[in-house]
Amino acid sequence: MLTMQDALLALTRYWTERGAMVVQPFNTEVGAGTLNPATVLRVLGPEPWRVAYVEPSVRPDDARYGENPNRLQTHTQFQVILKPDPGNPQELYLGSLQALGIDVGAHDVRFVEDNWASPALGAWGLGWEVWLDGLEITQFTYFQQAGGQTLDPVSVEITYGVERIMMALQGVDHFKDIAYAPGISYGEAFGQAEYEMSRFYLDDADVETQRRLFEDYAAEARRLLDARLPVPAHIHVLKCSHTFNVLDARGAVSTTERAKAFARMRGLAREVAGLWSERRAELGHPLGTAPVLEAAPVPTEFAAVEGARTLLFEIGTEELPPHEVTRTVAAVERALTDKLAATRLGHGEIRAYATPRRVIALVDAVEPVEPDAERTVRGPRASAAFDAEGNPTKAAAGFARGQGIDPAELRRVEVDGVEYVGITRTDLGRGAVEVLSGVLAEVVAELRADKNMRWNDPKLSFTRPIRWLLALLGEQPVPVAVSALAAGRTTRVHRTAAEPVVEVASAEGYLELLAGHGIVADQVDRRARVVASATELAATVGGVVDGASALVDEITNLVEEPNALLGSFDARYLELPADILTTVMRKHQRYLPVRDADENLLPHFVAVANGACDHDTVRAGNEAVLRARYEDASFFWRADLRTPPEVMKEGIAKLAFEQKLGSVAQRADRIARIAARLGETAGLSEEDTATLGRAAALAKFDLGSQMVIELTSLAGTMAREYAKRAGEPEAVAQALYDMELPRTGGGAVPTTVPGAVLALADRFDLLAGLFAVGAKPTGSSDPFGLRRAGAGVVAILRAFPRLRALTVPFGLSTAAERVRAQGIEVDDAVLAEVAEFVKRRYEQVLLDGGTPHEQVAAVLPLADAPAVADGTLSELGGLLADPGFAGLVAALQRVRRIVPADTGPGYDPAALVEPAEVELHQVFEKARAGGGVGLAGFTASANALTEPINTFFDAVLVMAPEPQVRAARLGLLAEIRDWAAPVLDWQALGTALEA
Amino acid sequence: MLTMQDALLALTRYWTERGAMVVQPFNTEVGAGTLNPATVLRVLGPEPWRVAYVEPSVRPDDARYGENPNRLQTHTQFQVILKPDPGNPQELYLGSLQALGIDVGAHDVRFVEDNWASPALGAWGLGWEVWLDGLEITQFTYFQQAGGQTLDPVSVEITYGVERIMMALQGVDHFKDIAYAPGISYGEAFGQAEYEMSRFYLDDADVETQRRLFEDYAAEARRLLDARLPVPAHIHVLKCSHTFNVLDARGAVSTTERAKAFARMRGLAREVAGLWSERRAELGHPLGTAPVLEAAPVPTEFAAVEGARTLLFEIGTEELPPHEVTRTVAAVERALTDKLAATRLGHGEIRAYATPRRVIALVDAVEPVEPDAERTVRGPRASAAFDAEGNPTKAAAGFARGQGIDPAELRRVEVDGVEYVGITRTDLGRGAVEVLSGVLAEVVAELRADKNMRWNDPKLSFTRPIRWLLALLGEQPVPVAVSALAAGRTTRVHRTAAEPVVEVASAEGYLELLAGHGIVADQVDRRARVVASATELAATVGGVVDGASALVDEITNLVEEPNALLGSFDARYLELPADILTTVMRKHQRYLPVRDADENLLPHFVAVANGACDHDTVRAGNEAVLRARYEDASFFWRADLRTPPEVMKEGIAKLAFEQKLGSVAQRADRIARIAARLGETAGLSEEDTATLGRAAALAKFDLGSQMVIELTSLAGTMAREYAKRAGEPEAVAQALYDMELPRTGGGAVPTTVPGAVLALADRFDLLAGLFAVGAKPTGSSDPFGLRRAGAGVVAILRAFPRLRALTVPFGLSTAAERVRAQGIEVDDAVLAEVAEFVKRRYEQVLLDGGTPHEQVAAVLPLADAPAVADGTLSELGGLLADPGFAGLVAALQRVRRIVPADTGPGYDPAALVEPAEVELHQVFEKARAGGGVGLAGFTASANALTEPINTFFDAVLVMAPEPQVRAARLGLLAEIRDWAAPVLDWQALGTALEA
Repeated sequence: MLTMQDALLALTRYWTERGAMVVQPFNTEVGAGTLNPATVLRVLGPEPWRVAYVEPSVRPDDARYGENPNRLQTHTQFQVILKPDPGNPQELYLGSLQALGIDVGAHDVRFVEDNWASPALGAWGLGWEVWLDGLEITQFTYFQQAGGQTLDPVSVEITYGVERIMMALQGVDHFKDIAYAPGISYGEAFGQAEYEMSRFYLDDADVETQRRLFEDYAAEARRLLDARLPVPAHIHVLKCSHTFNVLDARGAVSTTERAKAFARMRGLAREVAGLWSERRAELGHPLGTAPVLEAAPVPTEFAAVEGARTLLFEIGTEELPPHEVTRTVAAVERALTDKLAATRLGHGEIRAYATPRRVIALVDAVEPVEPDAERTVRGPRASAAFDAEGNPTKAAAGFARGQGIDPAELRRVEVDGVEYVGITRTDLGRGAVEVLSGVLAEVVAELRADKNMRWNDPKLSFTRPIRWLLALLGEQPVPVAVSALAAGRTTRVHRTAAEPVVEVASAEGYLELLAGHGIVADQVDRRARVVASATELAATVGGVVDGASALVDEITNLVEEPNALLGSFDARYLELPADILTTVMRKHQRYLPVRDADENLLPHFVAVANGACDHDTVRAGNEAVLRARYEDASFFWRADLRTPPEVMKEGIAKLAFEQKLGSVAQRADRIARIAARLGETAGLSEEDTATLGRAAALAKFDLGSQMVIELTSLAGTMAREYAKRAGEPEAVAQALYDMELPRTGGGAVPTTVPGAVLALADRFDLLAGLFAVGAKPTGSSDPFGLRRAGAGVVAILRAFPRLRALTVPFGLSTAAERVRAQGIEVDDAVLAEVAEFVKRRYEQVLLDGGTPHEQVAAVLPLADAPAVADGTLSELGGLLADPGFAGLVAALQRVRRIVPADTGPGYDPAALVEPAEVELHQVFEKARAGGGVGLAGFTASANALTEPINTFFDAVLVMAPEPQVRAARLGLLAEIRDWAAPVLDWQALGTALEA
Repeated sequence: MLTMQDALLALTRYWTERGAMVVQPFNTEVGAGTLNPATVLRVLGPEPWRVAYVEPSVRPDDARYGENPNRLQTHTQFQVILKPDPGNPQELYLGSLQALGIDVGAHDVRFVEDNWASPALGAWGLGWEVWLDGLEITQFTYFQQAGGQTLDPVSVEITYGVERIMMALQGVDHFKDIAYAPGISYGEAFGQAEYEMSRFYLDDADVETQRRLFEDYAAEARRLLDARLPVPAHIHVLKCSHTFNVLDARGAVSTTERAKAFARMRGLAREVAGLWSERRAELGHPLGTAPVLEAAPVPTEFAAVEGARTLLFEIGTEELPPHEVTRTVAAVERALTDKLAATRLGHGEIRAYATPRRVIALVDAVEPVEPDAERTVRGPRASAAFDAEGNPTKAAAGFARGQGIDPAELRRVEVDGVEYVGITRTDLGRGAVEVLSGVLAEVVAELRADKNMRWNDPKLSFTRPIRWLLALLGEQPVPVAVSALAAGRTTRVHRTAAEPVVEVASAEGYLELLAGHGIVADQVDRRARVVASATELAATVGGVVDGASALVDEITNLVEEPNALLGSFDARYLELPADILTTVMRKHQRYLPVRDADENLLPHFVAVANGACDHDTVRAGNEAVLRARYEDASFFWRADLRTPPEVMKEGIAKLAFEQKLGSVAQRADRIARIAARLGETAGLSEEDTATLGRAAALAKFDLGSQMVIELTSLAGTMAREYAKRAGEPEAVAQALYDMELPRTGGGAVPTTVPGAVLALADRFDLLAGLFAVGAKPTGSSDPFGLRRAGAGVVAILRAFPRLRALTVPFGLSTAAERVRAQGIEVDDAVLAEVAEFVKRRYEQVLLDGGTPHEQVAAVLPLADAPAVADGTLSELGGLLADPGFAGLVAALQRVRRIVPADTGPGYDPAALVEPAEVELHQVFEKARAGGGVGLAGFTASANALTEPINTFFDAVLVMAPEPQVRAARLGLLAEIRDWAAPVLDWQALGTALEA
């Protein structure tokens, strides 16, 4: 039996044998090994650093008196920093698991996307959770920024959760039962401290004292920064941070205090990082400068090939995030198509495939060479090329010299009817290998993802590191050099294979070769296998899985070789609401729930491992993980049920929402008041009003539940469950559930009117409040999910035409009132900006849904009430086939074009004298009087104007010299313009139809 | 090259392989690994505990900006706790050195007495410094008490000083040059932190903030104790302690604050320990109870031997303190002599030998059996034994029954002329083996030292653990069982021997056997070898060593096999005062200094290693240690010389002397004022008065020097050196030197009068002050050295009869005035107690010097002026041979006996009527008138009284019925009594002479 101390020693030994220095845990309390200066300071700057250490990590908030099997106020991290990235950190990491005695071939070890950010440290990185049979055992991160500084070189951070690993390896259910040392359990060694420190953190730490300590530490850190001493300053920031955590665990931090404290610590931490970098530079970087990888030599020699052959191009990566697999396969196919099109190289079909570890392009029948091409180079006009004696002029001579030919070789060429002198050159077709060498390098260099990162490559940037390239034209390697990468003729198969690097003989046999190593390159094929095997397994217990779900897409992109297995859990957990169980399965574990024919959950799940592994081992591991998670959930469920909703709601006062906007409780209060006003405006039934009132009073109460604190995606779901069980009316419970909908773009919207009103109030508050405090989304950053909120408003209003009175501007201004009541200024311009922002969401959803651009543009002015815009759009669809409508649009376009934008409506009919204008005046008066509802109603009346407008323009000079005549004519046209304006955007529609 | 991190891993591995659990360094700053709860709390109570860990130990006071080669604000300890004592911790420890690649056979590894005590922790233990070629690399302690609790079981604490070990192993001179990890030096890894933390501790920590932190931590600790949470309470005590150390390093702790802070921390630490023990008991001692060694079976079968044989008895120990070697060899010889004398076993000469690891007794010609012995048991008187019929009375019958015989077997025995009935019994002589078995067990069980300790034995207690017993009578093993120890027939030789345990064939060949293994058992022989080889080595460089010094005795008792080697140091260090160099050599390193014929130091030393070793290695190691120490000393010397004495003296205000008595500066001030008053009283010459004044003004200034802070035994020595170099008169410098004399009992006393006066003032202050504040010595505890101070007063006053006006009571009352001036109450009864305490020192020195007890008693009343008492004693020696003097003593004794103690002198001569009383009156009047000086003068006059006194008692009834007659007679006798009284203690002398 490997004890925990054996494991720590084994890891230490493993990493020191790989050149890591060992340091000691830090001698002041830290929340994570990252905060030890051996990480957070050493990752800064150019010096190389490779270190490994144990870090007992103190999280007062996780104190549970030693009672929770998985949660401790102090847990043990084993931390490794590799700076620079050694190029094979995943392989090194897997070796460390083997050093722990883990058979990585038998287990299912996977790298599952997990991006890390600590705004408090001004730090972020991309990487993975490492899963061992579904259990997160390690955080693996490529550090990109720290202390607000961009890191160069990038460091690899590997953080092992040692207690978890030990529980899994030893097969125990409670941390206390871990064999820590021979004959001594973890509980025996540390149980008393766990209990007593929990008491201190949760119950006994003196709040006033801790507040004073916080101030003293912060002040000392400040002074030490001023004294240019980053090391002791850092220590005092850590002490601040720990003290803050103690206060937090004691429940003594108000929202305002939290925001202030965070800002202060963040500021100090950034200064520490800056000062450390400066000091290291002043000291001349005592550890030297990390070497930078050299660029691969640019290919200069290109082999010739005979006949048309298949091109294979493989971009080998570390595990891509699932959505980036999909995204990248499309991007590579498109890029290759475009780039090849820009050459003269003939080729057949282009196919692209991808797994988490590779993006593959196969191009059929690539011609061996480009055909030659003739090209004319134009010189001066022929008329200016020769003087009277027929000798070349200076201009012609210069041109010839520039082209490296004798002026005598110039010949005449005609371009667009003009005669020039010039020459015709033949561009010789390049060999396929040369062409591909350039094209493929560009494809790689231009790869980009939603979030990109750096690794040890000096230039490349992508969602995860690109580690190898494979390019073959038939059997012929294509030399590709991109930054430090050079393409070869090897691919990599499963890391656990006996020979993980495999030579590829030819492009044509490549997919079969991969298949022979168990790798299913084609994502469609892979998905089908996932579904088929999951379905088959589910059937063995009389169940089915949802093969259409997005989760299957994700799973497909988490594995190279799907290996589904059926696991089970104790049926007693089925007493929990199904949403809890499926949330844990889907979101946390990526398991497919198994249901019976009546949609009832069965106590089984399908997990999909990667590659061959020992099924029993992997199943047992996954079952244990699920059991632990369900045990936690049961605990929360039982605890929450003892707390009435009103009491639970009190807890949300402690949850910070945003610095200026205050706590979640304040937000819930705003939502309730906004909802009331919206309800009045919409004219709700008495029953709905009562439901809305009660639901609004409870709004967000479940955020105070332990379950939602743990599983945030269950907000709303738990509100419904807990409300029902607390005896609230079904309608109230449903409204509380509805108010969190839609959860995603395209997700389900509320089903009840009170729920819809609450959901709108929620989102109007979010949008108005956050725009007001300047937290609007920028670029890819949208931490509060405002784009989703805007889309949600649109979706709800589209789904509830009867709420059309609740226009976006009205909702926003209602919300703004509440925000202003908190003393926060909300400029009207800001509200206009938000309304515009919401309108863009409507536009986007229409375009994404395939509505032609011009129609979208036409109805956009109506989008303050999306249901209205929808109505118009639907009418517009019918009208567009009608040539009369096109005439009307064109006529209105003529009107708009001639009337200056600043010309208002209104005219003196007496000033109209020409018949055509009088006619127009009369027809317009009649049309306006008969105007119907919506676009159809408008058109019915306005069609009569088409002819008179066209006649008017043919017969009348609008810009008459007499001012009063001109004014009357323009005024008439302006009236027509303004009458038509609210119906839709005629200009946009007209311009589009003209084109 | 073994890097430092390799070394830490090697130690960790070594100890885990021996069952130690590994814990992490503590996550708040600690000054030593001992303070980690894994030591200081876990050593309490009955639970077993075996742990090993690294502890970066923070000592703000040692901060040197990274500039000092040997001193760091954070150094690395490797800490091991073995609880209970495994029985072979030294052997385990040596194994750990081998695990570090240290060839313990080639090096000189020694265990040198070092006792550890932390009053602040209420903790103490006995043990050793471990020396590697003269370098202290480890602290090895048997923990006896912690938190004020006696430890049962005892823990073994092993604390490695890792930087020192690495510097020695890697042969580097500066900690920064240690190879910490492959390619990374200690300086590269930690240099910046060392500098910056030094800055923080020495210059930049904010004093007010740190004071507040101290208060906050202490208050939190208090609250946590009240909440019964010892673990977080302990953490806060540690935080207190570290903060205190920061304040101290910042020079911000006044004497009063220091005392208060220590008292507070001590109190808290003790409460933590107590509470921890309680809590562990409440938890039912989760780790169980350490097993207790079983008692060895008591021997019941004893072999017979033939003929007289030699007894060998060896008591095997761990390294005894040198003075205990000497003490124990004598104690064992005496005990064995006495105990054998109490048996009937015949034997020849008893010889005892000892080395640091064994005490040996050899007894020649032990007879094989005790002779039988007859013994009479007396019953009732014969007259009461038989009734008229000649039948046994009830008494006789009862006696017979009690003796288990028939009354008929009673016979008559005569005792002191009275006839009894009784029986004669024969006690059969026991075999030698049986007799010795008992005797030897008692010898071991009764072994005691100055300071005794416990180890894993359940009952024994001695200065260091006793690990084995060897007892042979000729070839015959003698079974001896003492507590858990049972004697065998093996001895142990050098621990580095191939076979460290050796069977002994017979007692007779034992010494030769030891000699064959290089062990010189006879201390006299060993000493001679030390001197001879040291002398020989010194001669090779033209020098000599002092073979008579006490240091040679100490060295003799530090080794079993002396192995002298000559080392050298750079001659430039000879510029330092010789006392510095020799102090370092003698006190710190136990090297013999080498001098030339003119007593000038040579740049060489003789070190005496133990056992065979590689001379070059050991020499190089010892030279490196000395170089480092001399480098430090040179640094201090140069720094001190830049500081004038007056400025240096300012520094002593920061040194605490005692809580109530204040700083060392306050004490120096008191000494100066006391010295002035003593000088006046003694009537010093003008010159001496001037010298005294100046010296008093500078008194103790050198305690502010860096040198004395480092090498405290150089106090006085450095004062003389620095004063001379600062231009003070030679006499002043000498007085400053003298004032610290005598340093030890029997040590040199001052040579100058001003020096003597200052030295007296120093000691009077010490005695009066500390007794006044209740800090008088108790039992073996005398932390302020008051016994030595009392003996010093006596020694000085005896050496300076011309200062006889400075009686002890006068000196003490003079000192008391100064103490009172600080607002401290000094009761007269306390002064009397001190005077009595000093008198006891005088008594002791006389008795130790062989003065007969009665003479000592006789002169003790005069000991307030020891020189006077000395004079009387010398006269008394002459008189005791004189029979007339004996008569006088007897006569005076008769006088004293009849006069009640409360009868005062004075009588009416007219009331005397009997001739004998008139005669006595007249002779007394005459004698009194002619009284000379001292005892001799008194005797010359008083001799005339002997006869009249005796006549008076023969002729006169003192207790006459007439009150006035009785009063006159008693009054006359009281006058005689009181006239004689001041001369000496006649009663004591008389009683002694009577006996």
